[in-house]
Amino acid sequence: MKNKFIVIEGLEGAGKTSARDLLLEILAQHGITDVVLTREPGGTPLAEQLRTLIKQGVSNEPVTDKAELLMLYAARVQLVENIIKPALSRGAWVVGDRHDLSSRAYQGGGRGFDQQLMDTLRQAVLGDFKPDLTLYLDVTPEIGLQRARSRGELDRIEQESLDFFHRTRARYLEIAATDPTILTIDATGTPQQVRAALTETLTHWLTENC
Amino acid sequence: MKNKFIVIEGLEGAGKTSARDLLLEILAQHGITDVVLTREPGGTPLAEQLRTLIKQGVSNEPVTDKAELLMLYAARVQLVENIIKPALSRGAWVVGDRHDLSSRAYQGGGRGFDQQLMDTLRQAVLGDFKPDLTLYLDVTPEIGLQRARSRGELDRIEQESLDFFHRTRARYLEIAATDPTILTIDATGTPQQVRAALTETLTHWLTENC
Repeated sequence: MKNKFIVIEGLEGAGKTSARDLLLEILAQHGITDVVLTREPGGTPLAEQLRTLIKQGVSNEPVTDKAELLMLYAARVQLVENIIKPALSRGAWVVGDRHDLSSRAYQGGGRGFDQQLMDTLRQAVLGDFKPDLTLYLDVTPEIGLQRARSRGELDRIEQESLDFFHRTRARYLEIAATDPTILTIDATGTPQQVRAALTETLTHWLTENC
Repeated sequence: MKNKFIVIEGLEGAGKTSARDLLLEILAQHGITDVVLTREPGGTPLAEQLRTLIKQGVSNEPVTDKAELLMLYAARVQLVENIIKPALSRGAWVVGDRHDLSSRAYQGGGRGFDQQLMDTLRQAVLGDFKPDLTLYLDVTPEIGLQRARSRGELDRIEQESLDFFHRTRARYLEIAATDPTILTIDATGTPQQVRAALTETLTHWLTENC
């Protein structure tokens, strides 16, 4: 099987961590054990520093939407150039907790950034590089945030308004509808239901694509 | 006198700190004492953290040119929105040690970034906001780096090749030639000569523009 770059996406509380663990299990069942895990923002020493700045800010200084967007892409280019591309080159699989689709949904949809600016940034940073598969775990903001809240304190972005997350989800669904490499999983059900849906989708994809 | 935003620019070792001190003296002689000093990258808590990441990197991870450029603009938007614009609005003068022209010269000229990307970033971050006056202190890289070396260790960017600084200087001169708000000062002479040239240029500008 040729190695691939697979990304898991979704709102807070969509179940990305459980999905990643299941994905690793399924890959292992297919004999794939050389897997590099990444998370965004973050995943390199510099990108992790940027993650802290993005999520926590510094000394109560307001973080402008523009600075947030630029730091996200700075972290992404470090991760792609220093970790993801080298891993793919040596034949490893890469499983990402979030990638560029998060910025398109959260900053493009949630924050309402100009589409042309988003496209220019993406093109400048990533060129034609993109995941082979993105699993988008779809939940309503109400369900997702309730799950996220139940596991502890929310960070700066997780404290946005419900409207923000509705705009973000709408943009996720909009992009997923036009990109055949993004598969949408209904993540509103029980863990067992989501697990079954993920297993079926992923097993089918691996059979078709690897 | 209506308050202004004045920026001092130039290569390492061009004499920006001495020029700033002289500028403050001359402003004080004109009765201007409400002056906010800024430096770039930096000047806000978040931007200063970005400055450290840009200048020192983290754990020997290579800092990509793209991440450097994006972090510079992230720091700039924080400084402009949280410090410079509020200071100008309340009537203070602002004196900046570097601003956008540095990115245009170092990243655009030195690193050779695509002009369209640079223009898109600048437009997205700054819109039409720009300094009223930029004093560009022109030195050859040979003279500037010799001065910079004599005062201590060089940071990540100061360790670039001589060619890099020649490209940067060429871009400074090129932009200065087309923008009447940028005044070029010959900074290769003795401190006394540079001081005299700066005093004359600045006194003349204040008379004409304030």
